[in-house]
Amino acid sequence: MRFVIAFLICCAASVAQMPDVKGDWVLTIVRFGEPDYTRLKLESNNGHYTGKIWSGVQLDGVAKGSTLEFQCSYEDDDKQRKACGSLSVSASQDEMKGQGKMFDEPATISARRDMPQNGTPRTHQFTPTQFHRLFSGNIEPALHINPGDTVQTKSVDAGGVDEKGEHRSVGGNPLTGPFYIEGAVPGDTLVVHLNRVRLNRDTAGIYNDTVVGSAVDPYYFRDLKRVKDFDSSWKLDRAAGTAMLTKPTDRLKDFKIALHPMLGCIGVAPPGHQAFRSGNLGDYGGNMDYNQLREGVTLYMPVFQPGALLFVGDGHATEGDGELTGNALETSMDIEFTVDLIRGKSLGQPRSENDEYVMVSGIGGSLADALQSATTGMSRWLEEEYKLNAGEVAMVLGSSMRYDIAEVVDPQVHVVAKLARNTLAQIPKPK
Amino acid sequence: MRFVIAFLICCAASVAQMPDVKGDWVLTIVRFGEPDYTRLKLESNNGHYTGKIWSGVQLDGVAKGSTLEFQCSYEDDDKQRKACGSLSVSASQDEMKGQGKMFDEPATISARRDMPQNGTPRTHQFTPTQFHRLFSGNIEPALHINPGDTVQTKSVDAGGVDEKGEHRSVGGNPLTGPFYIEGAVPGDTLVVHLNRVRLNRDTAGIYNDTVVGSAVDPYYFRDLKRVKDFDSSWKLDRAAGTAMLTKPTDRLKDFKIALHPMLGCIGVAPPGHQAFRSGNLGDYGGNMDYNQLREGVTLYMPVFQPGALLFVGDGHATEGDGELTGNALETSMDIEFTVDLIRGKSLGQPRSENDEYVMVSGIGGSLADALQSATTGMSRWLEEEYKLNAGEVAMVLGSSMRYDIAEVVDPQVHVVAKLARNTLAQIPKPK
Amino acid sequence: MRFVIAFLICCAASVAQMPDVKGDWVLTIVRFGEPDYTRLKLESNNGHYTGKIWSGVQLDGVAKGSTLEFQCSYEDDDKQRKACGSLSVSASQDEMKGQGKMFDEPATISARRDMPQNGTPRTHQFTPTQFHRLFSGNIEPALHINPGDTVQTKSVDAGGVDEKGEHRSVGGNPLTGPFYIEGAVPGDTLVVHLNRVRLNRDTAGIYNDTVVGSAVDPYYFRDLKRVKDFDSSWKLDRAAGTAMLTKPTDRLKDFKIALHPMLGCIGVAPPGHQAFRSGNLGDYGGNMDYNQLREGVTLYMPVFQPGALLFVGDGHATEGDGELTGNALETSMDIEFTVDLIRGKSLGQPRSENDEYVMVSGIGGSLADALQSATTGMSRWLEEEYKLNAGEVAMVLGSSMRYDIAEVVDPQVHVVAKLARNTLAQIPKPK
Amino acid sequence: MRFVIAFLICCAASVAQMPDVKGDWVLTIVRFGEPDYTRLKLESNNGHYTGKIWSGVQLDGVAKGSTLEFQCSYEDDDKQRKACGSLSVSASQDEMKGQGKMFDEPATISARRDMPQNGTPRTHQFTPTQFHRLFSGNIEPALHINPGDTVQTKSVDAGGVDEKGEHRSVGGNPLTGPFYIEGAVPGDTLVVHLNRVRLNRDTAGIYNDTVVGSAVDPYYFRDLKRVKDFDSSWKLDRAAGTAMLTKPTDRLKDFKIALHPMLGCIGVAPPGHQAFRSGNLGDYGGNMDYNQLREGVTLYMPVFQPGALLFVGDGHATEGDGELTGNALETSMDIEFTVDLIRGKSLGQPRSENDEYVMVSGIGGSLADALQSATTGMSRWLEEEYKLNAGEVAMVLGSSMRYDIAEVVDPQVHVVAKLARNTLAQIPKPK
Repeated sequence: MRFVIAFLICCAASVAQMPDVKGDWVLTIVRFGEPDYTRLKLESNNGHYTGKIWSGVQLDGVAKGSTLEFQCSYEDDDKQRKACGSLSVSASQDEMKGQGKMFDEPATISARRDMPQNGTPRTHQFTPTQFHRLFSGNIEPALHINPGDTVQTKSVDAGGVDEKGEHRSVGGNPLTGPFYIEGAVPGDTLVVHLNRVRLNRDTAGIYNDTVVGSAVDPYYFRDLKRVKDFDSSWKLDRAAGTAMLTKPTDRLKDFKIALHPMLGCIGVAPPGHQAFRSGNLGDYGGNMDYNQLREGVTLYMPVFQPGALLFVGDGHATEGDGELTGNALETSMDIEFTVDLIRGKSLGQPRSENDEYVMVSGIGGSLADALQSATTGMSRWLEEEYKLNAGEVAMVLGSSMRYDIAEVVDPQVHVVAKLARNTLAQIPKPK
Repeated sequence: MRFVIAFLICCAASVAQMPDVKGDWVLTIVRFGEPDYTRLKLESNNGHYTGKIWSGVQLDGVAKGSTLEFQCSYEDDDKQRKACGSLSVSASQDEMKGQGKMFDEPATISARRDMPQNGTPRTHQFTPTQFHRLFSGNIEPALHINPGDTVQTKSVDAGGVDEKGEHRSVGGNPLTGPFYIEGAVPGDTLVVHLNRVRLNRDTAGIYNDTVVGSAVDPYYFRDLKRVKDFDSSWKLDRAAGTAMLTKPTDRLKDFKIALHPMLGCIGVAPPGHQAFRSGNLGDYGGNMDYNQLREGVTLYMPVFQPGALLFVGDGHATEGDGELTGNALETSMDIEFTVDLIRGKSLGQPRSENDEYVMVSGIGGSLADALQSATTGMSRWLEEEYKLNAGEVAMVLGSSMRYDIAEVVDPQVHVVAKLARNTLAQIPKPK
Repeated sequence: MRFVIAFLICCAASVAQMPDVKGDWVLTIVRFGEPDYTRLKLESNNGHYTGKIWSGVQLDGVAKGSTLEFQCSYEDDDKQRKACGSLSVSASQDEMKGQGKMFDEPATISARRDMPQNGTPRTHQFTPTQFHRLFSGNIEPALHINPGDTVQTKSVDAGGVDEKGEHRSVGGNPLTGPFYIEGAVPGDTLVVHLNRVRLNRDTAGIYNDTVVGSAVDPYYFRDLKRVKDFDSSWKLDRAAGTAMLTKPTDRLKDFKIALHPMLGCIGVAPPGHQAFRSGNLGDYGGNMDYNQLREGVTLYMPVFQPGALLFVGDGHATEGDGELTGNALETSMDIEFTVDLIRGKSLGQPRSENDEYVMVSGIGGSLADALQSATTGMSRWLEEEYKLNAGEVAMVLGSSMRYDIAEVVDPQVHVVAKLARNTLAQIPKPK
Repeated sequence: MRFVIAFLICCAASVAQMPDVKGDWVLTIVRFGEPDYTRLKLESNNGHYTGKIWSGVQLDGVAKGSTLEFQCSYEDDDKQRKACGSLSVSASQDEMKGQGKMFDEPATISARRDMPQNGTPRTHQFTPTQFHRLFSGNIEPALHINPGDTVQTKSVDAGGVDEKGEHRSVGGNPLTGPFYIEGAVPGDTLVVHLNRVRLNRDTAGIYNDTVVGSAVDPYYFRDLKRVKDFDSSWKLDRAAGTAMLTKPTDRLKDFKIALHPMLGCIGVAPPGHQAFRSGNLGDYGGNMDYNQLREGVTLYMPVFQPGALLFVGDGHATEGDGELTGNALETSMDIEFTVDLIRGKSLGQPRSENDEYVMVSGIGGSLADALQSATTGMSRWLEEEYKLNAGEVAMVLGSSMRYDIAEVVDPQVHVVAKLARNTLAQIPKPK
């Protein structure tokens, strides 16, 4: 009897079949208590399983019973494959669990099948009751939504005042959200289509009475004669689509400008559990203050946290390039957007599209850094989307690129590289 | 009789009346062998003569016989008037000569009446035989012209090749000119209207096969896979107004872009007897490489040397923002321009106008410096032309300013601040 | 009897005297759920109570019974006092509570007496078991200490490896701490004296094999011939105080450099509930990578969160200026420091002192920004500590200032402005 | 007889032997009227002559009678040799003359034997009577000297005032020189050893009363309270080696600083026939304003024009890093220097040495550019002088590099990369 049992156990072990683990997974890798999230598309070939996770690390596995023994490796700068750990994983149809070492660090791993939501897109009315002044993954989601869903919501102005003139938050770009997008995993791209970005009150305020010091010559700035009690509030004529100073000076009594409502802040939770003030910006978007982020634009942002955690706010009735007054015509806003998800692919920085242009956002510590980032992002996008080589990229950029200086007044500077859609239309897009 | 004559001469001298020296003069002030040039508008009041020369120095004179005794003074940073020398000048109707001290330095002074040319404007056909690779006041003028005159001429491409494909100069932006504008004095503004900027051959060349290193991330640049023998020459279809690569790669075989012929180089002799390579740029203009300096544009440049000394060259069939390939679609050009002069007034940096925009050029060592210069220039122009105060300037710029990044590849960076003419049209222009 | 008591109570209430609220308080002001912390020193004068809180807001109160009615005001840019709210506060000897409006926002206020700890300083042995890769106020303190206390602890290297060669954390500057300093309030200065910064193992690693791309010309960087499998690990001879490459190349076989152990990371929780990766830096200190932050140095840092929350880590055996290899001779470290607190006073950015110099850290997005911040910080410090006017500051800086470029490789750049102590010794220090 | 002579002549011509043209030449290549100068070391091998001229162009020649037929070629970025012209040259022992095409441009060539002066070094007393405010190759040399020679001379202060307090020039860094160094050819290195840099009067002046606007935060600068009539002149105690304010304020009445006399300006004629104001700087040196350019220093500068054309001036009694007051303790100076020449070798930017350090000057439009240039220059110097590879350079710089910020106030910024001599002493210097 003991023999039989022993035999059965033995056989059970030896004949335990590896379930079919091919396909798409979402992994959580925990090292020293810190989780990382990544996708894994496992391909199988003759009992070997292969796939890639973050940072170009490749897993190569063989099944031993229901256990997968993975070797980890990566390609170094010299294009040589280097070992970087091993994982022993027990797998079922829908779940994997295991442990091992990665980069000499003990790692535990768990995985679930990636199952995209395929339900009918919904439209959510979301009335914010609380506002946040951080881009952060530590804030409880205000709403969970699916790719394909639409949200109709509102934002208060940069000072925390809503469409009725009521104070709703401490000032400093209070944000609506965060919206948790189901299925979003670091390494994905969140797509946000701005269906509506509309004014919902008749006033806006520039909070300064001179241009900012960093945008002009220091001696000019020093010798500037400031006007006592200059009133820089604006009256919005939504029907006519124009704005004028609320109390125009004599010289500006006919100065009427077109409204171009836009969102100053739109971003996701930044990488690495960081939290940045809502006045900040980076590859996660944020306080981008770009006057082209208007109704009709589609914005593509990297996902850095599970669920992406989308925030919106800081509406401007209109804004000059550079946001030279440090803020623009700050006002509250009615917003409607539809989200989508591009799985397992990310440019690593914001990109946006309108009817005329494809625009890549470069955000950095200086104008030079921001411009380098924007140009590099556009170059990479052309390489990836259009399979252009370095010479071809140079010909397209050298002949046809345009830059916008989005803003020069926030903690990071924002420069946009853009190409006209009708220029791009002349390059065939590979399948 | 001799006695009488002698007496008459003597008396004539002693009672010699100061001629009417009111009005406009051009002064040359020489200190330690170095000449400076400046305008002087003398106003008279009860035997006192007053006027301003460079750097805000004021002359206050009283006539003693035919001699004017001038005291020099200036306003310091605290708005206090400080003495800075004196000059003793003998004046006739049309000429003054004298000497004294300015800023503790011995100075001799000579002046001639400023007599604007009032002749009929002429049109000059100028065929260049020699090209210059410097912006410099030391180069013999190729042609003297009057304000109001028009010049029809040609430029070779940046490599020195003309419309027939012949090498005419060493490469490096060889320039046509210089043109001496009669009556131009430092402190004036030279106005150049570009009547025609037209292609005169069917080829253009980008001389590089990648974007420049300074415009992209250094690691991206390092890892760029350069294409061996990439052919970056272009074929121009002047009739259709388009350009294609001469030998297009498979992926760019349909890539056809619009021609927007422009002048990369347009500038005057720089200040202080300096000479800069024609690849350089500054407040004197130069290798500005701004893709909006096209046919139809009017350019305003400070005058730094007598005669201004205008140079043109470096035609581009078209150019992306930033001139990311280090040069653009370099080609030879047919050029026609009309010059004019604004006397005694200068923004100190280039400004240009087309149908849509007023544009101020900021040129500096970094993007930040260039942007500061452009914004400051636009602010000053609004103060001067529209009499706006600091608060009003802030409202206009904060709501309506646009920036262009002209180029980031030359020894100095060029950023342009611009305002739409229809925005400016809403501000009344004071008399 | 009951009547008498009731009467007494009643009367006591009705004639309730304001307790003596003069002196030092710590306030918490909550608006829309967000707390702010600030000190308040109340002075009393004839029934009026006056004091200042953050951002220069002044409270002016009158007692009505045991209630203090405060008017809030601030001085605007034109030095005019402007009202900004009012608070109604009920006060006991040791506590205040109240509410009102500040800047149009509803505010609740609570306060406790500021009671400095006066106990005997203690020495804490702290052995870290967990490491953090964020500078953040959201992390549970590892240890609470008092001003005057000393901590003896250890740090792992930037890759997470300890003195025994064991992996203890994911890499990326894992930090020891945070240490909560009792009594520290935003607006204070945390003083950290580095008693000991000592190596505790014989190996260190530079993780790169070239200088970083941002510190050299992009074409030089592109054309650099990288050495395959270059071993950039170092062997430390602690007895001799020198380091050599572990496997020196032939040309560097005699290359022996002095050890100057330092802390790359030392910082407090950043302002506004933000959390920054431990590779980041700012006015809160952080990954400052300054090779003068060694044993014997005293560091002064602004307090942004209650308790300050001090983190340390990222030891370098030595480091060149700029940290040109992106990291330095990374190693684990034995650390001993003593903390102190300067109440209610802050330069707003890190300052440090050694035997030779007083050093002010400027941290910014570009070298230009960092230099501006360092120079401004040093100027302000001279104004505050030595009561110098603008002319005197200019004379001292123009004749005697020194700069160090601490690092140019992290997300922010770090430039240090420094003045020799023997220069400063010639300026009398006012009481 | 005439026939015979004619025959002899004819034959002589036809059998004319190529003279021995091996060895060192100095070439002048003229294209379109513009001369370029370069060295050529011809090596001969079996009737083939080979040598390199500027820009890496190689000449490969074969003798046909007394004519050398050269093919020109260069190595492209892909290390492939490309043809770039041909020259036909008739040569005698001491002279060559010829013509051909280079880079499709007609070229005439002339050459003379390079004959280094081997005479006894001389010492020249040079009393300047004229001063120049340009670094330019168009200025007539004030003195011709040989490598090895010593010059004893004087400079006026930046305002043009000499040691007796007399105005000798318009202000703005008037320069002494230029000194023509016999035998110097573009591509060489001029060596200047500063034997004496001594004060010759007891006064110095800082011409400003605040720090410059670009070195501090713009809001700090705007709000700076300037001191009316602040006297920023200094009294020099040459015996004691110290300086104090001439009219010290109460707070600076004990402020006494050490004198470290230095030259703000030292440079050669810039490349390409350019002329730069003496306030400018670049790879030609110029207004470098580096407080380590003192007595005892040896400076190495690229030669860009025949004779190099050395200028000196702008003495400072001492200067803080950055030259934060826009100028330093400006004064006149006694100067003695000895020159030497390194033939055919140039780092392309200034390098200097004192007892402690080897220093490479990076000069650029921004701090970032200047730092990149300095680091690149030091890296290249280590590669060339010590034959280090990229990994070794990284180890040396990452562990041991120091930076100085020389100045941030001139038209170009100056950053210095430096390595201690005792660090370098540990790397063997190859023959």
